[in-house]
Amino acid sequence: MIGPEIDRLIQLLAKLPGLGPRSARRVALHLIKRRDSLMAPLGAALAEAAAGIRTCSVCGNLDSADPCHICTDDRRDPSLLCVVEEVGDLWALERTGAFKGRYHVLGGTLSALEGVGPDDLAIPGLLERAARPEVREVILALNATVGGQTTAHYISDRLAHCDVILTRLAHGVPVGGELDYLDDGTLTAALRARRNV
Amino acid sequence: MIGPEIDRLIQLLAKLPGLGPRSARRVALHLIKRRDSLMAPLGAALAEAAAGIRTCSVCGNLDSADPCHICTDDRRDPSLLCVVEEVGDLWALERTGAFKGRYHVLGGTLSALEGVGPDDLAIPGLLERAARPEVREVILALNATVGGQTTAHYISDRLAHCDVILTRLAHGVPVGGELDYLDDGTLTAALRARRNV
Repeated sequence: MIGPEIDRLIQLLAKLPGLGPRSARRVALHLIKRRDSLMAPLGAALAEAAAGIRTCSVCGNLDSADPCHICTDDRRDPSLLCVVEEVGDLWALERTGAFKGRYHVLGGTLSALEGVGPDDLAIPGLLERAARPEVREVILALNATVGGQTTAHYISDRLAHCDVILTRLAHGVPVGGELDYLDDGTLTAALRARRNV
Repeated sequence: MIGPEIDRLIQLLAKLPGLGPRSARRVALHLIKRRDSLMAPLGAALAEAAAGIRTCSVCGNLDSADPCHICTDDRRDPSLLCVVEEVGDLWALERTGAFKGRYHVLGGTLSALEGVGPDDLAIPGLLERAARPEVREVILALNATVGGQTTAHYISDRLAHCDVILTRLAHGVPVGGELDYLDDGTLTAALRARRNV
């Protein structure tokens, strides 16, 4: 007979991605043993985030402010617009510190099979933003998957008449990667896009 | 630039066992997308558990009541005392529904190497409980590890003069287990403890 509070906690933890019932119990015990150092702060952080985090109405980023801090940051270049599928991709690019423009989060990719059309994604908003005079370049930072590439094609078609430069991320050998372990497609792309040293 | 609320949430999630920075970000995104159905309830469950869960002063179980619901449940047999290392072991036994006595959680195992002596565990309390007239049997449900078995030996020495039956869990082939995949020790134990069919 496990108490109802602990039981409920375990059931909620088991809904997190990557956790099953067994690991949820392990996490619950770990938390109960660290009540003041981890459990209470995590509970507060979740409550705070649940109450405060919203989707930026301009770019689709998640932040406590709307428009988000990236959209309102004057030091960022408004002429560069980087299109990503999900907020996680935006986070990944922000971690590099290599991009100083603004973002546009689509919220997924086009999929005829799953009935996801342009209006289900943030594509209308993207077309509107890309047409603004300050935007000079749209970078399609979509995943190198079928869905990502289909979506990239669709967006480049729709932006063909716009006065913006359309770019995509380079394909090639990952930094630190070994040729022997690379798939043929990546190696072919890296060879085709070879550069002078 | 990830907002401070999300950043803090990710850092706390990364402290959970089995989660690293990457999976913590994935969990954070999963939670933010399920704000009302998962994030807010989990935050509330954590805060509630952090405020309400305590260690039972009788048996060492974790519950919102002290003594815990198992210790105060009249339908449970007070003559059976099951000794376990951790609360997780108590949960595992409770899930079976096969045990209807009371528990005693040691909080670990004896370890000369790590300086864990009998007084660092709940062993004094166990000796005191085992000496009570209503207790007839003490079941040592400790792990089949060096630490668990050392602790079992120590407890059985200390309880030798007491008027209680001392038992331990059976060793043998796990239900559903295949002989070919079993270690030699388990197979030897299962052979020695063979029973008439």
